[in-house]
Amino acid sequence: MNLHAQWIVGFVDGEGCFHVSINPHADMTTGYQVLPEFTVVQHKRDVQILHALKAHFGCGVVRSNHADRMAYRVRSLKHLLDHIVPFFMKHPLKTKKHVDFRKFRRVLLMMEKGEHLTQEGIEEIRRICEQMNRKALKVKSDPSGNSWE
Amino acid sequence: MNLHAQWIVGFVDGEGCFHVSINPHADMTTGYQVLPEFTVVQHKRDVQILHALKAHFGCGVVRSNHADRMAYRVRSLKHLLDHIVPFFMKHPLKTKKHVDFRKFRRVLLMMEKGEHLTQEGIEEIRRICEQMNRKALKVKSDPSGNSWE
Repeated sequence: MNLHAQWIVGFVDGEGCFHVSINPHADMTTGYQVLPEFTVVQHKRDVQILHALKAHFGCGVVRSNHADRMAYRVRSLKHLLDHIVPFFMKHPLKTKKHVDFRKFRRVLLMMEKGEHLTQEGIEEIRRICEQMNRKALKVKSDPSGNSWE
Repeated sequence: MNLHAQWIVGFVDGEGCFHVSINPHADMTTGYQVLPEFTVVQHKRDVQILHALKAHFGCGVVRSNHADRMAYRVRSLKHLLDHIVPFFMKHPLKTKKHVDFRKFRRVLLMMEKGEHLTQEGIEEIRRICEQMNRKALKVKSDPSGNSWE
């Protein structure tokens, strides 16, 4: 199935999610790991749409999500920077989701420069993510009791 | 805001709903009223998208939905037949929602011929709607105790 670029933009305006997790991680110098993710979730009856998105972007995976839902997911920083970001820069989202996308992109560009490996970078990423829609920042609680939420 | 036809298809594949209600109605000979409806619901922050859809289709209304959500809604049989159906016949939906759309269209064409005013027509419409996604058939309970569900 070939997807028109504008169809993809409309579908992602409706169903896509640009998400950054900041998770406690003992192995990281900062104590936190930054995990950016682009996802599109659909009922399994439309899994062929998710495979068509994967084919179009040339990256990512299609996996089970919750219950009878499937997700197209891109987590690789390189793939996000090389495939996903250029597409949505060329074909802008029309809903307010484009604001989340721009913040998502800012985080990716910081990560490209390794800024997420410093305490200052983590703090800056946290500030950017706080401005993203509430669903976009999910922080798992730290066993020490510290949490971004 | 101008919307590309393929953007609209993608957005409706994600967010649109083709819905037929069959409601008990004492004034109707059959005892039931058939109410087809095309809706797109969005958070109020993206109400400008709903107004752009209204402008594109040249029909329908933008109204409050639940809580902080707004809906673009087309209920007029004439507007559905003259504006909505031709658009999605020319620009097919890519998800399984196109199956619901085809059933929705069948109901509209029956209504155009007045078949929803006969008991046989109501029964046929009920059968068509039963095959639409579960959310697509909402039947209010009849004070007499009769209900399609």
